[in-house]
Order: sequence, then structure tokens, then C-alpha cells
Amino acid sequence: MAEKGVTPRSEDYSRWYTDVVQKAELADYSPVRGCMVIRPYGYTLWENIHDGLDRRFKETGHVNAYFPLFIPMSFLQKEAEHVEGFAPELAIVTHGGGKELDEPLVVRPTSETIIGHMYSQWIRSYRDLPVLINQWANVVRWEMRTRLFLRTTEFLWQEGHTAHATEQEAVEETIRMLGVYTDFAVNDAAIPVIQGRKSEREKFAGAIDSYTIEAMTGNGWALQSGTSHFMGQNFAKAFDIKFLNQSNELDYAWTTSWGVSTRMVGSIIMAHGDDQGLILPPRLAPFQAVIVPIWRKEVERPSVVEYAGRVADTLKAAGVRVKLDNRDELSAGFKFNDWEMRGVPLRIEIGPRDVEQNAVVLARRDLPGKEGKTFGVPLDGVAEATKDMLTTIQAAILQRATVFRDANTHTARNYDEFKQILEGGAGFIRVHWAGASEDEDRIKEETKATIRCFPFDKPEGEGVCFYTGKRTDRVAVFARAY
Amino acid sequence: MAEKGVTPRSEDYSRWYTDVVQKAELADYSPVRGCMVIRPYGYTLWENIHDGLDRRFKETGHVNAYFPLFIPMSFLQKEAEHVEGFAPELAIVTHGGGKELDEPLVVRPTSETIIGHMYSQWIRSYRDLPVLINQWANVVRWEMRTRLFLRTTEFLWQEGHTAHATEQEAVEETIRMLGVYTDFAVNDAAIPVIQGRKSEREKFAGAIDSYTIEAMTGNGWALQSGTSHFMGQNFAKAFDIKFLNQSNELDYAWTTSWGVSTRMVGSIIMAHGDDQGLILPPRLAPFQAVIVPIWRKEVERPSVVEYAGRVADTLKAAGVRVKLDNRDELSAGFKFNDWEMRGVPLRIEIGPRDVEQNAVVLARRDLPGKEGKTFGVPLDGVAEATKDMLTTIQAAILQRATVFRDANTHTARNYDEFKQILEGGAGFIRVHWAGASEDEDRIKEETKATIRCFPFDKPEGEGVCFYTGKRTDRVAVFARAY
Repeated sequence: MAEKGVTPRSEDYSRWYTDVVQKAELADYSPVRGCMVIRPYGYTLWENIHDGLDRRFKETGHVNAYFPLFIPMSFLQKEAEHVEGFAPELAIVTHGGGKELDEPLVVRPTSETIIGHMYSQWIRSYRDLPVLINQWANVVRWEMRTRLFLRTTEFLWQEGHTAHATEQEAVEETIRMLGVYTDFAVNDAAIPVIQGRKSEREKFAGAIDSYTIEAMTGNGWALQSGTSHFMGQNFAKAFDIKFLNQSNELDYAWTTSWGVSTRMVGSIIMAHGDDQGLILPPRLAPFQAVIVPIWRKEVERPSVVEYAGRVADTLKAAGVRVKLDNRDELSAGFKFNDWEMRGVPLRIEIGPRDVEQNAVVLARRDLPGKEGKTFGVPLDGVAEATKDMLTTIQAAILQRATVFRDANTHTARNYDEFKQILEGGAGFIRVHWAGASEDEDRIKEETKATIRCFPFDKPEGEGVCFYTGKRTDRVAVFARAY
Repeated sequence: MAEKGVTPRSEDYSRWYTDVVQKAELADYSPVRGCMVIRPYGYTLWENIHDGLDRRFKETGHVNAYFPLFIPMSFLQKEAEHVEGFAPELAIVTHGGGKELDEPLVVRPTSETIIGHMYSQWIRSYRDLPVLINQWANVVRWEMRTRLFLRTTEFLWQEGHTAHATEQEAVEETIRMLGVYTDFAVNDAAIPVIQGRKSEREKFAGAIDSYTIEAMTGNGWALQSGTSHFMGQNFAKAFDIKFLNQSNELDYAWTTSWGVSTRMVGSIIMAHGDDQGLILPPRLAPFQAVIVPIWRKEVERPSVVEYAGRVADTLKAAGVRVKLDNRDELSAGFKFNDWEMRGVPLRIEIGPRDVEQNAVVLARRDLPGKEGKTFGVPLDGVAEATKDMLTTIQAAILQRATVFRDANTHTARNYDEFKQILEGGAGFIRVHWAGASEDEDRIKEETKATIRCFPFDKPEGEGVCFYTGKRTDRVAVFARAY
């Protein structure tokens, strides 16, 4: 329950974020360093994210499975870049059942190694390929600086791991799954993400190529919201995933992996929220609509409450996720603020006059005040009106986030302009880029901005690199990132 | 793919079980001691179990949340019986992020302690109660002797944790959730479980009372398939879960916990399987029906395959989980055996004559041979016929399991009879019981049988204890158990 409002977003973005997460009861800090508790409201949001992604995975031919939480230390060491990337972040089990273990076990930071080992047992022939498996699981990466949902020691995610007979198929899968993530982000989460390839310094430890979807936060930073990796034959060689191809020759498989985590909850909060709190996209919101019954005099109450109950039943029967806020001890005004802060897309107000007129009032979360209100919506047809309004809101917040992203996307002709843009606020900086990894490191050190991706969509064509002055057709999106 | 059949159940029950789990590709051994890999076919079964339970939890007012994997060692020590029960089974993280931890972290064996801690932060007043939270998670208990699904070091489960203002409410919740488990077991898993209370020596570490559902396996043993615990104020006192009651006095909350795990998969396998392999209940089967197209001459093939595809589409559109087995390289006979072994409830055979007659053949998994076949089922109405047949099969396997359980439930007038029954095979032994925990220990030592529960349903009334000779109205079900 919100005793006080959240810190305005415009005043302190970081505090606003933490306030919103806690006061909306999405998550809470736990007594375990870096680990959070996902509370029911936040977990229901995650369940809806799960369902939206899982449906898409199954439509593209994937099945779910489950692999062990623990991985023998020696497995990680089989892929040199992989262990180098993950070693500093590992949690290690040294004792089990009262005894010291012969070989320490790593709590999985990601599962390429153990899954690779199992694939080497299961895959014999090209007939066994492709293997298209996804896993919903918890993983652990020992993080120094944590932030609820965005970076926690333990987090929930899905990790897809596929094996293919040819390089081309594996590359296609990598890009297909980035497309699935984009489709989910745009159409369900209403986040206009940018798709692209990661630079060498930002790619996954052990991958040939990493791809990403990058969201823009309300303060103009970037937030990596999903990644898809083409592993080549790196993991197949490390774990001996071999198969007899159609020419009856032994060949290494080509593998991919791809993941979206509870970080997506942070993306949604940061993409849409405002000074009053959360704004949740209707397709993912735990409650799409909240009904607030309003009465002044006690004598008005029974008919308002009864009517509100009928509206709730009608909406539930029509498949709307609706909450009827019948709490006695709280004022309507308090409830308005509370549900606004919690980001429920649509408020349905019902007072004595509405009961008389057989109508309701719809109030949009994304358009405050009179502008977002529709009066006299007839009870007959209230489900259709609600659903239509939810569709409108879903489109409107995507549109608003797109306009915001575009307005905060700049270009720079040279490094001075680049630095001025970052000092003047934030945003994405789209530039031509012909620099090396060391140039990228230097820019990061001096400005805190990194290459978020080389975007797929680059109408710019050829141009001059803002940093090196060389001509190139490569376009990079730089930004400060969470 | 099944190269060889499974070991017949009648020949070696243990080997049959392991064979079925591996050859049906439900699960596989992993390189990590005691941990299994749940393969897609087994995981889909678990997803269906998840969905059936989760729907029932939500219908009874529960919400899901997620709590940390790691628990500080000191938390477990706050409840004396709890730590005593779980200490020997703990996996312990001693290092994180390259450093030795100040306080070792336990990988959760169950979450009463960390959830109790959070509840103490969240619960202030009777208005905050009841808290009705469930968690879907992995847990780790270091087991010495493991068996796929039945007892593994890591397993998946749900653990409900609720807090209430009064003792009565908490007791009611405990019993309500046992009822939910029973409803699921009987109606979805087709397992005629026995509900009852656990004896002192078998109850959960830290509980006042534990309740259980016990299934009978195909070899007449018992398998605990779900438990629900009334904690009294034990955990509330250990974790300081206090609230202001309606009289404005501070009081400790009353808590419960209840869980069902991937062990349920083992229950299903053991309750229904036969010499040929699995028999899965239609409501939970990953594939409810498999279509096997049959042709002798190559010229017959196109029309059979096309027709089979149309039947598959019709069934899918009607909501049947159907698999079309179009594999070219395998004979129809091989496919019959393969899907029989995998326990698909219904096989739909389609040959050239069926195409001519606009019909299909339905073959039940639970009734082998001609007896289970229905010829000439018209294409027009195939979805209804399939669904009706699935309903029939669901009821038939529950009926068969019930008859089997009753036929293998005995009574004993004295300890000699008791031992004779166990030597003559196995089964449940229902007896009047007035013994003490030490008597129970002695019986276990001498016969390997334990009290599975004091059943709720006991038409026996008062009688004489088979062991002590005392008169009592307490009835116990003894059995050897997995």
C-alpha cells in the first residue's frame, strides 16, 4: 500500500525506479546479498512475459526441458573464452551432504556447457537435428552492483539452446529468435527496441556473433533486453557434439543460444513509467483494468457495490484481467493514486449516477485527467468498450515510446559533438563507425558510452566515421547503458 | 528411439521403471551426482502437471511469487527441529565472486525460513492476512540413493506458504490444499490416492501436523505424492511473524506449507505402466493421440499422408494434443511399439482403406489388441469421437488403478499375519494401531514397512491394534514405500 507517492521520475530517475519497484510491490530486497524477492504483482507480470515468449517459442518449433542447476567446474573450463568471461561471477558449492566435494560444483551462470555435454550424448545423426530446446530456469552471477530486476545475483530467465547440421541453419535460428524477441518486445511489451549485432567487446563469452535488442529507458539510456548468440562450432568442439551427416561423415554441430530474463520487467518499467509510477502495457499487465466503486453516502453504497460486481463479472467472462477494489477502509481518491502508481492501464469508475444511467466511466492511465476519460460508456457493451480501449492504450504507449526514442536519437559528426550530446543529457547516438575495440574502450572510459549494437536497420548508407574519419558503411548505436 | 523394448514390469520392477524413464525419453542421468535431466517429453508432462495444479491454486485464491535460491545458514538454525531434519541433506555455497563468503549460503532444500523472514517484513495487521503465496522452484537435498523423478538431489516443485490470523483458518487451509492435491491426483493423474495424516516419525521437520496423499505403485508399494503441513506458530515464532489482531493486540501468525514435486511424474509412471511401457492419463499426456499413417505400396502413400494431415489439423483445431508420426524411415509396426512404450493414450491408424471409406481406426493404449480397437470411425465427427475416447480412457485407468489398489489392500489381525502379507508380496495393510513411535521404528526395522498415513476415510470404526492388542479407533495404513 502506498503511504507516500514515489519520488518523481524527473527529480531522481534512480530513486524513482527503486521506489516504483518497491511501492508497487513488484519486488523487495532479500536478506541474501544481491538476491531479490519477486512479489506476487511482479511475478504475475513475469508469468505474462513467460506466456508471451513461451507461446512464440512453441510456435517456432521449440520444446522445453530442464537441466541441472549444478555444473562441474571442469565443464566450464572446456571452452576457454567462456570460462574467462564467467569465472569472476561464479557461486561455488564446495560441500554437500555434510562432506567436502571432490570437485566443486558451479551454480549455473548459463547452461551452454552442461547442455552441450548432454547434446553430445543424444545427437548421433543428421536425423537427430535440429535440436530445438529451451529451458526456463534460475541462474546465478555474482554481481558487485545490483539493482532490482536489472542486475541481481540470482535471476530468472529462459535460455534456448539449439544444435543444427549446417552453419546457415544455425545463423538463421539465431536471427529468427532475435526476431521473436523483437516481436514480443514491440507487440506485447510496447517497447520499440533496436535490433542489431554486438561489437566484439560486448559479445557473449564463447560466441562467434551476438545479437541484441536494445530498449531506451525514460532517461535516455540503453537497456539490453534480450540476446541471441551464434556459437559456430565452438561449443560443439569443446563438448564433442558430433553427428553423421548425410554423406555419412562425422561433423561437428553448429549451435546457438538465446535468452531473455527478469530484466525485461525492468525494461517495461523504464520504457513506460512516469512521475506517478508504473504504466504497464495491457497485454502484460497483471490487472488490465481496475474497478473503483465510488459513493458519498452509505445509502448509495449497496447498489454501487452490487453494480460494480456485475461489471467485474462481465469483464472476467470476456477474458479481461480485472480487479474489483472493494476495500472499505480506503477512499476512492487513495485508490485512484494507488492503482495509478501500480500502472493498471485502465480504471473503471462507478458512482451512483453511473448506476442510474446504466453506464461506467473509463479512465486511461496513459492520459491523465479529463483527456483520458470516457464518460457514459453503456453497461451493455462494456466488455467490448474495455477491450477496444485496452487495444488503443497498447498502441498509444508503443507510439509514445517510439516518438520518445526517435526524439532522443542523435547523430554526431565528430567526437566533440558526441561528447556534447552526452553532456547535454543522454540518448542514443547513431554514427558511422570504423574504429577498433581499443577505440571503443577509450570512448567508454572517457564518456561511459558503449556501442549498444550495429543496427540491422541502417538507412544511413555509407558515411564518415565520427571518431576515425574513415569512410565506412558500418553504423553503430552508442549510449550509456544499464 | 526404442531400439529394444523395456524390461517387462513383471520381470524386474526397478529395471522396468528405469528403462521406461530413459527409453521413453522422459529423463536422463546427468554428469552431476544425483541430478537428472528432464527431457522434453518428460518436461511437457511436468508442464501439464504444473498447469493442472496452478489453475487449482489460483481458483482457491493463491498467487505465485519467487524467493531466493540461497538461504543464510543462520536462518535454518532458527527452528530447531527444522535444521535437525535438513542439515544432513544440505548443499552449501562457500565461495562467491572469487571470494570466500562471510556466512555460508545454503541452496534451499525448502523455503519456510526465507519466506518466513519476508512475511515478518510484510505482515503488520490482520488486514494483511491471509497471505496465500505459492512458489514454483527448484530445490536441492543431498540424497544418498537417488532414482529418476522419485528421489533426486535437485528437483522441481511448488511450495505453497500461507499465513493466517487464526489456528482454525490455517488448519482449514492445510486440509483444503490436501484436497486440491487429491482432486488433481484422482481427476488429472487418474491415481486413486489415500489421504491421511502422517505419524510423528514421518512428519515434516518443524510441523505440528503433516498430511499426505499416498499412491500405490504397480508392485504394491506406497509412494508419497504430495504433502500439506500445519506449522502452528512454530515458524512464526522463529521468524517473528507478528500482526495486530482485530482487538489491537500483537499475535503470532499461523502458517502452513504444502508441496508437490517432479516425483508426481514417478507416481504416474508407477501407477499406470505395464510390460510394454508407459500408460499416460489423457489429461496430462504430452500427446493425447498419435496418428500413424500406414501404406504398403508407394502409390498409396500420398493420399494416406495427405488424409492423415487433414485428421491431424482437425484434431488440433478441436484442442486435442496430437502427434502426426510422418517418419519415413520407420515401419508402422515400429511406430506402434514406440508410441505404446511412450504411453500415448490413443493411436489413430490410417491406411488406404480408411482413406477410401472416409474413416479412421482408434486403438486404445490401455486395452491391447482387438479389444481396444474401434474400426470405421467416420472422419466427419472424428474430433468428438477422439475426445470421447480420451474421456473413456481417463476413467478406465482410474478405475483399473482403484481395483488394483483395493485388491492389494489387506488387513492383519496380528503381527504374524502382517509379516506374512509382506512376505507374500506387498500391498497396503490397513490395521488398527495403538502403538508408539518406537513400535513403528521396530516394525520398520523388521519388515521395512512404515505407517504411510492415518487415513481420513476409516469405515473400520473401533477395533484391536494388531501390534499392541489395545482397543483403538485409530486406523493406520502400513506399506513399504519408495
